[in-house]
Amino acid sequence: MEEYSSVSPVVLVHRPPAMDFIDEPLSHSFTVLYTHTSPEPLLDFLSSNASSVRAVVSVGRLPITAEFISNLPSLEIVVCASVGFDHVDLDECRRRGVAVTNAGDSYGEDVADLAVGLLISVLRRIPALDRYIRSGQWTRLWDYPIGFKLDQKKVGIVGLGSIGSLVAKRLEPFGCIISYNSRSPKPDNVPYFYYPDILSLAADNDILILCCSLTDETHHIVDREVMETLGKNGIIINIGRGGLVDEKEMVKCLVEGVIWGVGLDVFDNEPEVPEELFGLENVVLSPHSAGMTAESLKNVTEVSVANLKAFFSDQPLIFTV
Amino acid sequence: MEEYSSVSPVVLVHRPPAMDFIDEPLSHSFTVLYTHTSPEPLLDFLSSNASSVRAVVSVGRLPITAEFISNLPSLEIVVCASVGFDHVDLDECRRRGVAVTNAGDSYGEDVADLAVGLLISVLRRIPALDRYIRSGQWTRLWDYPIGFKLDQKKVGIVGLGSIGSLVAKRLEPFGCIISYNSRSPKPDNVPYFYYPDILSLAADNDILILCCSLTDETHHIVDREVMETLGKNGIIINIGRGGLVDEKEMVKCLVEGVIWGVGLDVFDNEPEVPEELFGLENVVLSPHSAGMTAESLKNVTEVSVANLKAFFSDQPLIFTV
Repeated sequence: MEEYSSVSPVVLVHRPPAMDFIDEPLSHSFTVLYTHTSPEPLLDFLSSNASSVRAVVSVGRLPITAEFISNLPSLEIVVCASVGFDHVDLDECRRRGVAVTNAGDSYGEDVADLAVGLLISVLRRIPALDRYIRSGQWTRLWDYPIGFKLDQKKVGIVGLGSIGSLVAKRLEPFGCIISYNSRSPKPDNVPYFYYPDILSLAADNDILILCCSLTDETHHIVDREVMETLGKNGIIINIGRGGLVDEKEMVKCLVEGVIWGVGLDVFDNEPEVPEELFGLENVVLSPHSAGMTAESLKNVTEVSVANLKAFFSDQPLIFTV
Repeated sequence: MEEYSSVSPVVLVHRPPAMDFIDEPLSHSFTVLYTHTSPEPLLDFLSSNASSVRAVVSVGRLPITAEFISNLPSLEIVVCASVGFDHVDLDECRRRGVAVTNAGDSYGEDVADLAVGLLISVLRRIPALDRYIRSGQWTRLWDYPIGFKLDQKKVGIVGLGSIGSLVAKRLEPFGCIISYNSRSPKPDNVPYFYYPDILSLAADNDILILCCSLTDETHHIVDREVMETLGKNGIIINIGRGGLVDEKEMVKCLVEGVIWGVGLDVFDNEPEVPEELFGLENVVLSPHSAGMTAESLKNVTEVSVANLKAFFSDQPLIFTV
C-alpha cells in the first residue's frame, strides 16, 4: 500500500505454525515478523527483535501475556484475528495504553451451523453410515443401523446467548421442541421454555446442546448426575468448551449406556481426545472447528488488516475490545 | 387380538431377510407366512402355500408382480409397509379387485432432515473430520481441513414438491438463498426463485439438491454439462434416486475437480457404490437411509397393522392407493 511504502510499520505475528491464513494479506502493507519461525526461545526472540514492533497480530489464541507485552517497548496495538480475546492480558494492555481489537462476531453462525450438523450427524448416524459404505459393508439392502427423527425431539439449550439463539432458530423448522437454561429467563417474545437449572432441563429433554461460555460456575455443568438424569436415549452436543462436561464421566456414561450419544467439537485437553471414543459408533467428533470456515477466516483476515491499516492512518478502528 | 382368535387371517410377508420390524406386531393378530424363509424358489413356495393367503405385506420394495399376485387366488389386499408402491403391479391388483394400501407420508420429514444433514456434512466436512480425529491425526491444533459457511450459499432445489419444500424451509434460517426448478412455477406465496430448466439453475447456484422423482424426463437430469455449469465449487446432494445423476460422469467430475463435492443417499445400482468414491474426502455417503428412522418404521408398522385390522373388520382403510 502506498501510504506505508516509506515507513512500513513492523507487525509481529504470533501464531501456530499451521495457521498461515493472514500472512499474505499482511505482507502487502507491513513489515512482518513471526514468533514461530525463530529458533530462539520466544522471550529471547522478543528481546532481540522487539524495539521496532508496533503491532502484534494474534492468531489461534496463543497467549499474549504481560511478560510478552512488556518485552515490546514500541507496541501500540494488539490485533486479535479471532472473536475471543481472553488469551490477551487486557490489564497490561490498558496499563500500557495498548489498543486491542478483535474480529467481531463472524463466527457465531458457523458455530450454530456445526452444532446442528453434529446433532443431525449423531441422530441420523451420518459419519457411521459413511464409514459403513466406505468399508464395503453395504452389500445387502436394509441391513444398516437405523437412525432417529428430529421432529418432536426435545432439545435443551444450555446458554441462550447469541450462538444458542442461532442454534434454536435453525432447529425450529425441523420440528424440535426447544427449551433452555440460562442465568435468567429471556424476554417474553423468546418462544422457548425456560428451566432455572440444568438438572430440570436434563430431566425434561432428550438432547442437551452446550452453548454457554466456560466459567467457574459452568465448569463441569454436565456431570454424571446430569447425564443419568438425561437418560439412556440422551444426546449431548458440545460446541462450547471441553470443561463444560466432566469428560471422564462422559466416556464412562457412553460406554455404560447411561446416555446414547454425543457430538463433540471441544475437549478437555485439546488436541487430546479420549481414545475410548474412537471405537464408539454413537459419537461424532470434530477438532474445535465449529467457528472455522474459509469464509470466516477471510472475513477475520479482512477485519484484522483493516483494523491495522485504520490504526496506522489514525482512522477509527472497526472493532475495539 | 380377540376378534381374530378363531379365524386369524393368513398374511404373507414379502420382505428382505434383514427387515424384520413388522414381524412381531403382525404375529399378535394374524397367521404369518414369510417368503424369505422358504428353501423353495418363490413361485414354488407360492403355489404350495398360496391358497390360504388373504393379505400380502410388502416390505422394502421387493417387487409384487402380476405373476406373484396371480399365484394367490384368495388375495384380497396388498399392504405396502412403505410410502412408495411403484414396486406393486397396480393394474393386476385393480383387475383382480385387490385393495392396495401404503403408509402415508411419514418419511418426508426424515428425507428432508437427511438432505440438510448431508449438505452440512459436506460443507463442514463432518465425516472427514471425524475420521481425521479417530485415526489419530489431530496431534496439533489448527492443522485440519477447513470447511465452508452455509450463510449466503445459493441452493437450487430440483423438484419443489413436499420433500423439496421441507428442505427449503429447513435451510432458510441458515441464511441460504433458495431457488428451484420444477415443471412449472409455484404460486406467488412461495418465496423462492424459479428457474425453468436445470442448466440455468446450475449456472446461478452453488449447490443442487435433487428432490424430484425419477421419470423418463428426469433420468440423468444431472449430466456432465450440468456439472460443468455448476462449476468447481459446486456441490450436489441427491436424496431422490440414483438415476437422476449420470453416476459415471459424476465420479469423473469429482476426480477431475469439475465439481467440489457430493452428498449421496442414492445410487444407480444399490447396494453397489462406485469404489472410486471411497477414497474421496469431499464425498459423504449414506445407504438409501434418508426415509429410515426408528420413529418412521414404528409409524409405518402401526399404519400397516391398523390397515390390515381395519380391512378384516370391514372398517375404512387409513391410506388407500
